[in-house]
Amino acid sequence: MSLRVTVWNEYRHERENDYVARVYPQGIHQAIAQGLRAHGLRAVRTATLDTPEHGLSQEVLDGTDVLIWWGHKAHTEVGDPVVERVHQRVLAGMGLIVLHSGHHSKIFRRLMGTTCSLRWREADEKERIWVVMPGHPIAQGLGPYFEIPEAEMYGEHFDIPQPDELVFVSWFEGGNVFRSGCCFYRGHGKIFYFRPGHETYPIYHREDVRQVIANAVRWAAPTPGPAFPYLQGAIHETDPLEPLPEKHPGRTRVG
Amino acid sequence: MSLRVTVWNEYRHERENDYVARVYPQGIHQAIAQGLRAHGLRAVRTATLDTPEHGLSQEVLDGTDVLIWWGHKAHTEVGDPVVERVHQRVLAGMGLIVLHSGHHSKIFRRLMGTTCSLRWREADEKERIWVVMPGHPIAQGLGPYFEIPEAEMYGEHFDIPQPDELVFVSWFEGGNVFRSGCCFYRGHGKIFYFRPGHETYPIYHREDVRQVIANAVRWAAPTPGPAFPYLQGAIHETDPLEPLPEKHPGRTRVG
Amino acid sequence: MSLRVTVWNEYRHERENDYVARVYPQGIHQAIAQGLRAHGLRAVRTATLDTPEHGLSQEVLDGTDVLIWWGHKAHTEVGDPVVERVHQRVLAGMGLIVLHSGHHSKIFRRLMGTTCSLRWREADEKERIWVVMPGHPIAQGLGPYFEIPEAEMYGEHFDIPQPDELVFVSWFEGGNVFRSGCCFYRGHGKIFYFRPGHETYPIYHREDVRQVIANAVRWAAPTPGPAFPYLQGAIHETDPLEPLPEKHPGRTRVG
Amino acid sequence: MSLRVTVWNEYRHERENDYVARVYPQGIHQAIAQGLRAHGLRAVRTATLDTPEHGLSQEVLDGTDVLIWWGHKAHTEVGDPVVERVHQRVLAGMGLIVLHSGHHSKIFRRLMGTTCSLRWREADEKERIWVVMPGHPIAQGLGPYFEIPEAEMYGEHFDIPQPDELVFVSWFEGGNVFRSGCCFYRGHGKIFYFRPGHETYPIYHREDVRQVIANAVRWAAPTPGPAFPYLQGAIHETDPLEPLPEKHPGRTRVG
Repeated sequence: MSLRVTVWNEYRHERENDYVARVYPQGIHQAIAQGLRAHGLRAVRTATLDTPEHGLSQEVLDGTDVLIWWGHKAHTEVGDPVVERVHQRVLAGMGLIVLHSGHHSKIFRRLMGTTCSLRWREADEKERIWVVMPGHPIAQGLGPYFEIPEAEMYGEHFDIPQPDELVFVSWFEGGNVFRSGCCFYRGHGKIFYFRPGHETYPIYHREDVRQVIANAVRWAAPTPGPAFPYLQGAIHETDPLEPLPEKHPGRTRVG
Repeated sequence: MSLRVTVWNEYRHERENDYVARVYPQGIHQAIAQGLRAHGLRAVRTATLDTPEHGLSQEVLDGTDVLIWWGHKAHTEVGDPVVERVHQRVLAGMGLIVLHSGHHSKIFRRLMGTTCSLRWREADEKERIWVVMPGHPIAQGLGPYFEIPEAEMYGEHFDIPQPDELVFVSWFEGGNVFRSGCCFYRGHGKIFYFRPGHETYPIYHREDVRQVIANAVRWAAPTPGPAFPYLQGAIHETDPLEPLPEKHPGRTRVG
Repeated sequence: MSLRVTVWNEYRHERENDYVARVYPQGIHQAIAQGLRAHGLRAVRTATLDTPEHGLSQEVLDGTDVLIWWGHKAHTEVGDPVVERVHQRVLAGMGLIVLHSGHHSKIFRRLMGTTCSLRWREADEKERIWVVMPGHPIAQGLGPYFEIPEAEMYGEHFDIPQPDELVFVSWFEGGNVFRSGCCFYRGHGKIFYFRPGHETYPIYHREDVRQVIANAVRWAAPTPGPAFPYLQGAIHETDPLEPLPEKHPGRTRVG
Repeated sequence: MSLRVTVWNEYRHERENDYVARVYPQGIHQAIAQGLRAHGLRAVRTATLDTPEHGLSQEVLDGTDVLIWWGHKAHTEVGDPVVERVHQRVLAGMGLIVLHSGHHSKIFRRLMGTTCSLRWREADEKERIWVVMPGHPIAQGLGPYFEIPEAEMYGEHFDIPQPDELVFVSWFEGGNVFRSGCCFYRGHGKIFYFRPGHETYPIYHREDVRQVIANAVRWAAPTPGPAFPYLQGAIHETDPLEPLPEKHPGRTRVG
């Protein structure tokens, strides 16, 4: 069966700003979806903030293998019940690709447990993205680096947990570096943070960026192992697997 | 200057249950504090749930280098503002040692981003704690393993991020295993989760357990590097460090 | 194209010992190959120690995507040029699955940089293999644990680098634990160490073990990213990617 | 007791090249030793290649807590028995700090299991070293970054295992990035690779570089846990810790 991908986009800049609208006439979500389809992913749909439940009903999430997240200026408008729902789905196995300014989204911060803050600068500067883990599936099809001629800068310190796998590191013209491609395992889910992308640059039309996002979707696909019994915080009392003699017969358990 | 340690304890079981009161007549916090003092830590104080601000005012936290956390049945009674305050302090560099049932505390779950759930069983069974990273500072002074004759069982799958350093793995008589000693770096802070300890067993009176907790306190001590500018979620606009030509003179910035 | 797998076996015990010959009449390599074919891998061949170049000519290795390694009592008889050749191929991207007593093979020790030693005991004891990373592709199709009724014991401390991903931890009847399923990224290659298997037990006929090995083969498959330019220790002088003013015109370079 | 540090230097460039001799009149080893003493380390001695056993007799190594390694053009002249001896000592707990061109030394490559190759360029370019793990002890006393006005460039891909802790990432004027400060745990030993330093630049006279090396020495100090029983590749047969019934009485063991 095809991997089922949902591309979520805040979709405000494109509707409110003429410049951005020219870069992404159909919205960032459609540009990303198009790139995924061009890379052979057939079951791709989109969802946006200003629709009921932000387009992320339980049904939609249950039918999503990998969710892609782009948000920027309206992070706080994402309802907590939806964030909670996405969180649970990731822990239960749904892949999550967080793009660019999504670093500061509620869902990414909740999954990381840190501020996810960083340095930034918007100065049309060159970014060169180096592959530091060339055997990783997310680096498939790339050369040793690729360049984005004009980008918003994100710089260290990026306040995240150490990634389980660090795939990319960015060089910026203005003198900064950034861990640009970061893999995290959380619960049964796989999460990939990918830095490039800003509403004022045509970055999601680029072939290299589309390649990475398609690679990441395939890497983050659920791989059904043991069931995940822990949703809603339930813990799990369990019988012994080996014979256990009763050590204090008659003692009332108090714990 | 001495490391300043605060031992926090829920302190309910000991006051409500005679059996527990006999095991920890002065409370779990005092048993732990005593162990730390015996290991040369001189600036140790305690704090408990049923006091103003749970004993964790901003002033107390600002004067704490490493916080130890024991909670069990009243996790939900810990006020969110205090959890937020502890979270911020950890990200800013305060060490945090989470013990046993603290795995399910608000603060640990928030820092981990996962459910932190696990399998458990209370059956007075033997636990053998193996050192799997013998060169780690937290294993200092130990042999290849140590045994706790009767313990509550915690078993895998333990729903945490992969630890940055896995120091201990437990064997249980009833057939389970558990990652018992887990190091995490978050923000500027260092976190150690240590499994042993339950209100009905005299585990915090044991020399091996005290050794580990004292080691962990020293490992988790703040090591002041660059300032942490990201509290309250602030992000950080930053000037270029290299000359950056203006690429589109006259274009109005829209981002 | 099908993944091309080569199963390498020392193939001595089976030819020299009647008991082992009854457990693996066609050799451990054939039992493993059979399991892989049953899991849909079609291009599986075998190679053994007592053939020219141990069956691992450059041509064979160049035509191998994932190599499986089983050795035990003749590690020292594996020729250094073959070890060197395998090492280079792994760094260049070939997957490597090291089984059981292969922990002490020349190739695994060379890739790890440590002694790869461990505690062991042969006492027909029960092993219960717990999944500690249930969302990992290598855990696909498994339950929370599986059991091997009689096994040789391997116990911690296992002297390896911390794995990049720890998938399994074993419980043993005799009181030991072991990190049984360990993923490592090295160069462009992916390595999986999997503990179960001993010549006197029919472990490679088991469905759960076969599932894991098939999963591991798929996980370790090469994912062609940037070329790997570093074989034979060559380093790589490189031109600047940005304009670099000459800082000391006329100074002779001495480095 | 004071930490006992040995600074090892190839010590050829300084004796063979006038330019280098002016930068390091007493050799790179003395410059480093001086920096350590200025940071309060009192038991610092040096050793060099062209002395008996390269100055690294068993006795010297046994009396060394942390070894610092600088080599460049004579890696192949370091005798294999000495490399073996250093390897064993690291696995048994001695700290190792590998500097700059030491990335290609026999000892570092053996410990890593990879080629340890990289891109390089000698063009007097600016390096800015960013702290990406600001709570790490090795970042103690630093700001968010520090700059070296002229340096040899090392660039990714750096063919090493993923570090257990990545502390620094470098930005280079010519467009490259590099993982400049990398922690590894191997056996009982702790290893830190630190990029800066080249014989033609006065880098080891810099206060920031000295601070990092002193921090690294303290981080890499041995922390005596369980004994390390595995030298010379010995493996370790071990008795059961729990009662084990004999399962096949009378069967002769064949393994």
